[in-house]
Amino acid sequence: MAEYTLYCFSESGNAYKVALMLELCKADWEPVRVAFFSGETRKEAFRGLNVMGEVPVLVHHRQDGDFTITQSGAILTYLARRLGKFGPDTEAEEFEVMRWLLFDSQKISGQAGVLRFLRRFLKKGESEDVTFLHARTVSALNILEARLTGRDWIAADRPTIADFALCAYLYWPEQIGVDYATLPNLSAWLERIRALPGWSRSEDLMPSGMDEQTLTA
Amino acid sequence: MAEYTLYCFSESGNAYKVALMLELCKADWEPVRVAFFSGETRKEAFRGLNVMGEVPVLVHHRQDGDFTITQSGAILTYLARRLGKFGPDTEAEEFEVMRWLLFDSQKISGQAGVLRFLRRFLKKGESEDVTFLHARTVSALNILEARLTGRDWIAADRPTIADFALCAYLYWPEQIGVDYATLPNLSAWLERIRALPGWSRSEDLMPSGMDEQTLTA
Repeated sequence: MAEYTLYCFSESGNAYKVALMLELCKADWEPVRVAFFSGETRKEAFRGLNVMGEVPVLVHHRQDGDFTITQSGAILTYLARRLGKFGPDTEAEEFEVMRWLLFDSQKISGQAGVLRFLRRFLKKGESEDVTFLHARTVSALNILEARLTGRDWIAADRPTIADFALCAYLYWPEQIGVDYATLPNLSAWLERIRALPGWSRSEDLMPSGMDEQTLTA
Repeated sequence: MAEYTLYCFSESGNAYKVALMLELCKADWEPVRVAFFSGETRKEAFRGLNVMGEVPVLVHHRQDGDFTITQSGAILTYLARRLGKFGPDTEAEEFEVMRWLLFDSQKISGQAGVLRFLRRFLKKGESEDVTFLHARTVSALNILEARLTGRDWIAADRPTIADFALCAYLYWPEQIGVDYATLPNLSAWLERIRALPGWSRSEDLMPSGMDEQTLTA
């Protein structure tokens, strides 16, 4: 058994953040597929694993027993500490990283991720909820663009888990329905992350959460 | 000068989380009013303080210099550590608290808070974006209800900053446009927090972010 088990599926940017971190750290991990699109996360068994009904869920098989943890930002914080990579070095950096993880959770993954879901998977047209989320997503992307003025990384002078959290959904701009033409700092930052040794696409790290009949439908 | 300066306004549930924590800990703090409703958080000067353009912003006047921190979940974590109250005692509790702070940021404050803003302050009717956020808010409240089955507090066997983060917007059900008739665990939990010594309403802890002419309009 691998040291880390990750309950996940490749369409989830939240799962991708963690898979990317594990891969960049060359950790010993294995994905367990969650059949999201046929409703697995709404079922009793999955809710027993995570009352929030979401991936990712990480189980660390430790010598003192299995340690289960959910919410990508919390998992990333745990992994940075355990693996000794991509975490904060000082107290000031710790809270800088944390505030960007929270910003990501609410403003990027919590909005761009939902917008992508509506457009890509629910195939919603330009309804009022889509327009609303689109405007809020653009506003959040502009904040990242401003943050990246004159700096290479979000929270420190080197890549940290804050970068990995914020970038995950942003490698799917067509699916979100945004473009980066007016966001040169953000575009360059995404390329910097992509150039890190071990970087991989979500689809190459985890199985799809779609069933075959959904995939071929 | 007080030890802690909090940039805030009373209509902000995110600011309320921090004001409530400071008050429950009997900390030496003072609020600085941010004129949110006339656009202060969109201005250059405020963006210099917080590129995210949001309250709360906490400045801790330390002997080694001012320490500025933003995002309510990060501020609460900092305060719990500094003040030695309402924080986690073990590593397992630390990640339990953190995952609920992240859940709050995305699913409660990030949705119920926005829904309240649309209904209460923008006076939007039952538009598609309101309906969308309403459904997602109800779903998130049901997760809290399930979590509170057989337990008094969200993340530990005692109140923690996770409770304070999650409860803040939920003291305004009429403004959000939800009711708790089917949520007995959640209702009882809100009352338990309200019974803590030092609990106060947001409006009694911070100045309003509205200008007088807006207030009387």
